[in-house]
Amino acid sequence: MAHITLTEELPGIRGLLAFSPKTAKPLNALAEALLRTDEGLTKGERELIATFVSSLNDCFFCKNIHGAVAQYYATEDEYLVQKVKADYQTAPISDKLKALLSIAKSVQKGGKFVTENQVEKAKALGASDFEIHDTVLIAAAFCMFNRYVDGLATFAPDNPAMYQARAKKIAEETGYANSSPN
Amino acid sequence: MAHITLTEELPGIRGLLAFSPKTAKPLNALAEALLRTDEGLTKGERELIATFVSSLNDCFFCKNIHGAVAQYYATEDEYLVQKVKADYQTAPISDKLKALLSIAKSVQKGGKFVTENQVEKAKALGASDFEIHDTVLIAAAFCMFNRYVDGLATFAPDNPAMYQARAKKIAEETGYANSSPN
Repeated sequence: MAHITLTEELPGIRGLLAFSPKTAKPLNALAEALLRTDEGLTKGERELIATFVSSLNDCFFCKNIHGAVAQYYATEDEYLVQKVKADYQTAPISDKLKALLSIAKSVQKGGKFVTENQVEKAKALGASDFEIHDTVLIAAAFCMFNRYVDGLATFAPDNPAMYQARAKKIAEETGYANSSPN
Repeated sequence: MAHITLTEELPGIRGLLAFSPKTAKPLNALAEALLRTDEGLTKGERELIATFVSSLNDCFFCKNIHGAVAQYYATEDEYLVQKVKADYQTAPISDKLKALLSIAKSVQKGGKFVTENQVEKAKALGASDFEIHDTVLIAAAFCMFNRYVDGLATFAPDNPAMYQARAKKIAEETGYANSSPN
């Protein structure tokens, strides 16, 4: 049971967004700006970074919903998200994305863990300043979303089909900015 | 030097907000929604929570700018922020705020560190569901802002007078939503 009485018993962050519409608006807009564009990083790459950080923070709701969205985009490999979660270094993703995930992994521990070397490596593999910026901010933002969801002890369904159905809806219809919490 | 080439050499988060206007807008709106209201928690209490978490994350820019804003509101005690940073348990703040800072301290480690007991204690001391919600989200948001600022290695001035002048401007004029990064 959640630590506070939520207006509606919705899973994960959705109950919190319904509880506090004033903060829901900028939180949704941030997710939309960070995840729903193919400028630089693709939507699929952005969702993979979000999933990876949510896994490191062990946030059940976030790692499952963003994992389902990331997998929705990974049409060429039905086990891609599973492989990245298990070991991103050996997963079938680009070397540039591996270098960016290594930066995201450091951000998850704390901003100061990101090293000059990590950034130089990502740049050498073709990462632009904007891609490095977006990687750091996606990783940082999920350190917030994960803490928000788990810090208030929201509930999360076990059923993978729920996450897959919701992911399809997010990817094809609602996105994040305009998604009603219902 | 920052890990990426910033458009303008502005301190802390300000250079990043100028670099990426699309994400700046929701980030500023979130800070405004969380920190610039006296509904439930006062502006001063909100800034104290932000400062406390930024100190735990050792983010020089954030702990100094939000510390200066928190101190701006603490007109009755010119050492309040210093006392809270040193030991919030013995600082001259309400027992309710101490209980909320204990929750914020857990959120800084990770969402799952928040215990039922901590929440029950805060409620027994008069904290409403909204105050607990806002405490968790402020703490979580500063785990993002701190990582964003330090993960990209932005520069931060040493001079306390800079932070005090900026804090006065934020409190009296600009707030966060409408503050130009310049």
